[in-house]
Amino acid sequence: MKYSQLFTKTSKTAPADEVAKNAQLLIRAGFVYKEMAGVYAYLPLGLRVLENIKQIVREEMNAINSSELIMTALQRKEVWEKTTRWSDDVVDVWFKTRLKDDTELGLGWSHEEPIVEMLKQYIHSYRDLPVSLYQFQTKMRNELRAKSGIMRGREFVMKDMYSFHATKEDLDNYYQSVIDAYNRVFERLGLGEDTVVTFASGGAFTKFSHEFQTICEAGEDVVYINHDKSVAINEEVVDEAVAELGINREDLQPVKTAEVGNIFNFGTQKTDEMDLYYSDSDGNQQSLYIGSYGIGITRLMGVIAEKMSDDKGLVWPDAVAPFRVSLIRIGESEAVVEKADTMYQRLTDQGITVIYDDRAERPGAKFADAELMGIPHRVTISERLLDGDRYEYTHRASGQTDILTAEELLDRLSQ
Amino acid sequence: MKYSQLFTKTSKTAPADEVAKNAQLLIRAGFVYKEMAGVYAYLPLGLRVLENIKQIVREEMNAINSSELIMTALQRKEVWEKTTRWSDDVVDVWFKTRLKDDTELGLGWSHEEPIVEMLKQYIHSYRDLPVSLYQFQTKMRNELRAKSGIMRGREFVMKDMYSFHATKEDLDNYYQSVIDAYNRVFERLGLGEDTVVTFASGGAFTKFSHEFQTICEAGEDVVYINHDKSVAINEEVVDEAVAELGINREDLQPVKTAEVGNIFNFGTQKTDEMDLYYSDSDGNQQSLYIGSYGIGITRLMGVIAEKMSDDKGLVWPDAVAPFRVSLIRIGESEAVVEKADTMYQRLTDQGITVIYDDRAERPGAKFADAELMGIPHRVTISERLLDGDRYEYTHRASGQTDILTAEELLDRLSQ
Repeated sequence: MKYSQLFTKTSKTAPADEVAKNAQLLIRAGFVYKEMAGVYAYLPLGLRVLENIKQIVREEMNAINSSELIMTALQRKEVWEKTTRWSDDVVDVWFKTRLKDDTELGLGWSHEEPIVEMLKQYIHSYRDLPVSLYQFQTKMRNELRAKSGIMRGREFVMKDMYSFHATKEDLDNYYQSVIDAYNRVFERLGLGEDTVVTFASGGAFTKFSHEFQTICEAGEDVVYINHDKSVAINEEVVDEAVAELGINREDLQPVKTAEVGNIFNFGTQKTDEMDLYYSDSDGNQQSLYIGSYGIGITRLMGVIAEKMSDDKGLVWPDAVAPFRVSLIRIGESEAVVEKADTMYQRLTDQGITVIYDDRAERPGAKFADAELMGIPHRVTISERLLDGDRYEYTHRASGQTDILTAEELLDRLSQ
Repeated sequence: MKYSQLFTKTSKTAPADEVAKNAQLLIRAGFVYKEMAGVYAYLPLGLRVLENIKQIVREEMNAINSSELIMTALQRKEVWEKTTRWSDDVVDVWFKTRLKDDTELGLGWSHEEPIVEMLKQYIHSYRDLPVSLYQFQTKMRNELRAKSGIMRGREFVMKDMYSFHATKEDLDNYYQSVIDAYNRVFERLGLGEDTVVTFASGGAFTKFSHEFQTICEAGEDVVYINHDKSVAINEEVVDEAVAELGINREDLQPVKTAEVGNIFNFGTQKTDEMDLYYSDSDGNQQSLYIGSYGIGITRLMGVIAEKMSDDKGLVWPDAVAPFRVSLIRIGESEAVVEKADTMYQRLTDQGITVIYDDRAERPGAKFADAELMGIPHRVTISERLLDGDRYEYTHRASGQTDILTAEELLDRLSQ
């Protein structure tokens, strides 16, 4: 895409009312716009990052035979009353509204109850099981405070998934395949090294649930981790888990983390509360086993922005960058324009996403924008290197610059 | 995709509480689930159709240099008060809610005011213009009644686009390019023949706006059309338009239609109401010209379901079908399974979307499901045609069946 056609505007200064680093950077770089505290619009650059994250998650959920659908934001009171979770005393993040006839409606902060209710129409027999469904839903939560930028929104995008099984063993196996799939997601996002599967508080059915916690100074959680990251425990259950797992408390160090995913084994609790049953092969009514699995999509974007940035701005990993290459044209001579146009065409022909800075701006301003936006690779075409087959390549993360031939350049960008 | 992995369940009977044909069919075929009147979840099949429609619209909007972003559902009172449209007396479809501190919020039924407010941060000078932005947003409208299925939702998906210009001429040119792009969209969706650009009521700036109305018995509008469809006028302005355009009223016939798109020229009215200005090349403050352009994405899906269906079920056009081919395997012998598996692989390798019915069901049930779901092309593999290079092909819309070789089949499906 040509920069002259891109809707955005970078800014040298951070907005005064924004304390979170992720939001400061994303606003300055033109990725998001703050509508109000905890509520952000995603401008074209930001939407591209979000869609890249979603696509990675989508591929990994499809790979474990989950099917994508989209539930509704407007939700029925009577569905949530079946589990007592309609009450504002039980769930303190409800936004509620009313139909013209005064019927109360809720705005989806979660979709567990609605999806269980829905499945009463689709699951009758053991032949209908197992089922795994997921969505990318805009959730709304009436948070008292929202100071963490896009890491804790009042309106945010979550991938939530629910699986339904005839037996405990089948749920246990699927639960493990979700852990593996989540690990692949965080690996592909460049967060694998710093993301740990963490013991967290469970429910009626299991002592512990599992969270995926990413080490992050701006995170709101504290997790106790041992030196090789093979054990991690949320501080809320650290005493319990240390006793249960037979670990030395002294081997664990507290670190600040952000919860990027969680998985929860409901057992048959929801089934029983909401009257969802199936008939086994003998025609007997049986309880279903349910698992629930979340990934915070907008939060992940915020965590990446927090962790992968420097004093010049954002530093996106290739997998989520809005464009992989920033092609910067310095000068307006016919020869420079032709060389830059040709390289733009070659790169896009290879399926490489390029933002081509064709503006009549100072070189310094173009470089600064590309750095602030965190485009992983920069290719500069100027009068200086016009003669011969030479291109200036700069790696955003390391700052290393090389003079490459076209072939060497394409080779490097294909990696 | 294999049918055994598809989450859906077809039904022979329509739900008792659903009067609209589109919703009856889409629920029976397992495309949508009714959460409440006017509020539907989109199951995997339905989501695939929606995404196909969105992708066609996206390509055409990108082609006229509009950029995709995503605004927020939660909206600020003070933004809408600038144009008086916060008031429930002025806008009677608001859903409203409250933050913990009792601040009132609105749920986006439209995004005109919020996008104009946002652009104050991004448009300062004539160099920042023109700008065109669009989104696929889940809108919420508190409709008193919602009896038209997904054709009039309380929660629905809309493509809304807004363009901003320095001059009236620039807006007029862009407005015409949107009319052309919209015509391409409806053409690609198979609705071109029955969709007319219609004069409708305008605003302070123009006498008429333009609607795209599709002839549809279940539509809620009435449009006066002449015999060759070259002139169409919404009944709300028919007297005015007949006089203005010098048309014979007798040449126009009333027909029922559904409004699938609308475009509106705001002139400088919103600019002036909301204090969005730009500086011209002499540094003087100037008003902006604004256009607003909508397409009802979920409504389009409903209109297609209404118009393209028969007594056996839905009949999707290729461009939006959840899968283009239904591959039906009759029999479980090794030879049949191998022949069907091989054809499944060949079709998917060619990029053709296939739902492969691998279930142990009666042939009649498989045919009925494929017909109800409206899959455009059916390929049947059974013992009967096992010997030799022969495949039974059936065209959903015409019902025509042919015995084809593999090459003839692939040739036909590549068209």
